[in-house]
Amino acid sequence: MNERTVSQNPVIPESTTVGIVGGGPAGLLLARLLHQAGVECVVLESRERAYVEQRQRAGVLEQSTVDVLRASGAGERLEREGIVHDGIELSWDRRRHRIDFPGLTGGKQVWIYAQTEVVKDLIELQLADGAPLLFEAQVTEVTGADTDRPVVHYTHAGAERTLRCDYVVGCDGFHGVVRDAIPDGELTTYERVYPYSWFGILADVPPSNDELVYAHSPRGFALLSMRSHTVSRLYLQVPNGTDPQAWSDEEIWDELDARFAVDGDWKLARGPITQRAVLPLRSSVTEPLRWGRIFLAGDAGHIVPPTGAKGLNLAAADVTVLARAFGQLHRTGSSDGLDAYSRQCLSRVWRAEQFSYFMTTTLHVAPDQNPFDTRLQISQLDRIAASPHAAAELALNYVGTAL
Amino acid sequence: MNERTVSQNPVIPESTTVGIVGGGPAGLLLARLLHQAGVECVVLESRERAYVEQRQRAGVLEQSTVDVLRASGAGERLEREGIVHDGIELSWDRRRHRIDFPGLTGGKQVWIYAQTEVVKDLIELQLADGAPLLFEAQVTEVTGADTDRPVVHYTHAGAERTLRCDYVVGCDGFHGVVRDAIPDGELTTYERVYPYSWFGILADVPPSNDELVYAHSPRGFALLSMRSHTVSRLYLQVPNGTDPQAWSDEEIWDELDARFAVDGDWKLARGPITQRAVLPLRSSVTEPLRWGRIFLAGDAGHIVPPTGAKGLNLAAADVTVLARAFGQLHRTGSSDGLDAYSRQCLSRVWRAEQFSYFMTTTLHVAPDQNPFDTRLQISQLDRIAASPHAAAELALNYVGTAL
Repeated sequence: MNERTVSQNPVIPESTTVGIVGGGPAGLLLARLLHQAGVECVVLESRERAYVEQRQRAGVLEQSTVDVLRASGAGERLEREGIVHDGIELSWDRRRHRIDFPGLTGGKQVWIYAQTEVVKDLIELQLADGAPLLFEAQVTEVTGADTDRPVVHYTHAGAERTLRCDYVVGCDGFHGVVRDAIPDGELTTYERVYPYSWFGILADVPPSNDELVYAHSPRGFALLSMRSHTVSRLYLQVPNGTDPQAWSDEEIWDELDARFAVDGDWKLARGPITQRAVLPLRSSVTEPLRWGRIFLAGDAGHIVPPTGAKGLNLAAADVTVLARAFGQLHRTGSSDGLDAYSRQCLSRVWRAEQFSYFMTTTLHVAPDQNPFDTRLQISQLDRIAASPHAAAELALNYVGTAL
Repeated sequence: MNERTVSQNPVIPESTTVGIVGGGPAGLLLARLLHQAGVECVVLESRERAYVEQRQRAGVLEQSTVDVLRASGAGERLEREGIVHDGIELSWDRRRHRIDFPGLTGGKQVWIYAQTEVVKDLIELQLADGAPLLFEAQVTEVTGADTDRPVVHYTHAGAERTLRCDYVVGCDGFHGVVRDAIPDGELTTYERVYPYSWFGILADVPPSNDELVYAHSPRGFALLSMRSHTVSRLYLQVPNGTDPQAWSDEEIWDELDARFAVDGDWKLARGPITQRAVLPLRSSVTEPLRWGRIFLAGDAGHIVPPTGAKGLNLAAADVTVLARAFGQLHRTGSSDGLDAYSRQCLSRVWRAEQFSYFMTTTLHVAPDQNPFDTRLQISQLDRIAASPHAAAELALNYVGTAL
């Protein structure tokens, strides 16, 4: 149990307006935005603070995500430490092609700032001046979804507790429990599982390229990314079920070398590997994102494979729309915003799903992939290099649209 | 045996510069272009003239195909009867979106003129003033591919004959025999077979839409096309192995109605169905398109599914490049053009393969398609309607590039 959390949240409320289940970036940002709008809320997070703050996730923020983080008050360190990127590079056939974001999108950029840092900033803000945030509060069930007062049941500090809410928002991820409150048959989930995973490492070495490199290779996909000017984040496509401990550091670097290989002088710098993990790739969309007084946001409503860098950005978009809707209800009594929430977010979600699928299937080599399909991938990548329209489509999808 | 053919080609030569196997549009156009360039050639076609002239195939000509047909002298009736189209329509979710070709491509258009008519025009020209063209000349084998004088063996009018050539061009389609002359292991074929076919009909009814309509529907793909102002050409996606006789006319029209359904007043006009056939969908590319003195052109080298309307246009591009190369050899003695043929054509071929694959997989519903994939198709179509870049990519690929 986290002493600091409890000391700063001595009163555990028994009721609130918006009960937020899940203290990842979606839940924390929503709480922050609701707090600013004068809407009462409580955040319940099942894990301890240290765990939440170290969970490795995304690292690319769209401008609209940066804008809402700034507006929420969590932009200070992001401004200082975030790295603005004007493009990405695609690598295939031993050559590279740069996608120039500002040139192709009318000036748009993205920011490199790790999700772990976003979460730390939001937690600090929340604990200093925000709605109640309980760590190690394990939600077991949400009842009364069909009533005006749904109840969140959870355990905290060994005790069973309840939180009565006007609304419950599930920000509790793909395996979350909030969606279980919605009766069978009311939700439809669309899903695709990919026949490969990402083997991600953190390494204490300055990134070998200023911008991200998305590499197609006959050996599989690889991604060169970064957490900061001194920490590299690298990924290898691997078979599902790969044991991250089964590879030596040297094997990892050798494989990365092989996949990023280009004609010319460029070399991948090596350094101590400080963290390693294998993550499966999945696409999933649940419709609708709202039933009665229960809302789903972020990964609780939809999952994208990480290839399009959309997961965190979609979560930020969801809670921005949702916070505006709760603000409208609070100020004017109108539920128009809440009624439009699902439709409005799903349009953006499907666009991101399609883009993420495109990036994933263009760059990865499926285990059963026939050589014709590989040649089509090359042809698609050649086309992106040759056609300004094809390049602009990629760039516009990557940088995202304003909310 | 065709009296007219024989009477106009009384002398059956025993040797030539370029032996062309196959008298479809690729072989006929090549013969015409070689004749104009002063290069001697002979065309051997296994079927009788009437069959060749009635084989239903493509009907959309890119501007570059029209240009080469005009240059070949076969443009007169095309100019008179061809219908210029400024766009196509996409249909999904009970609505339509028009792709405006000139607006999106800087003024480009396509022509509607059936392959059967192209073939008739070329045959007439060839018989009146051209290189020898033999129908019912069944090629059995090509030998001596590794020598300076390959030999085409064929039967004609009951006799076994040979044609000694400096070069042999296989324009004999996907199941052609010319490629068999090339030693095992010298060619690589990349291939994909689709899990659906097209059920195509000709109907004596004016087309219900001025432009082609490509329809995505949960029931499967449908295409509204035309052969002229009075003849409609319509297609339905059906399972592989479908017997075209198993459907009544009414069932065909009902299914077309269901797939083209849009909100509003539009109705599909019905008329007598005069022809019906089921054709499988396949992608295939053979590399290289040349080995020694043997060349492959058109369907003999590559197959595209018809969704992108590229088959005939690729064939015209191949033989245009090849005729220029033989012309160069004839005039200057340089084989640079012949040496570049395969590489030059394959670049265009792979672009067309990728576009045809995109059109096919965006618009068809695979038998095992999961609902997530269907939603991605809708998202892709929505994107084409929303993004000028996505629409321009489709339009530019559809109208094709100059040779």
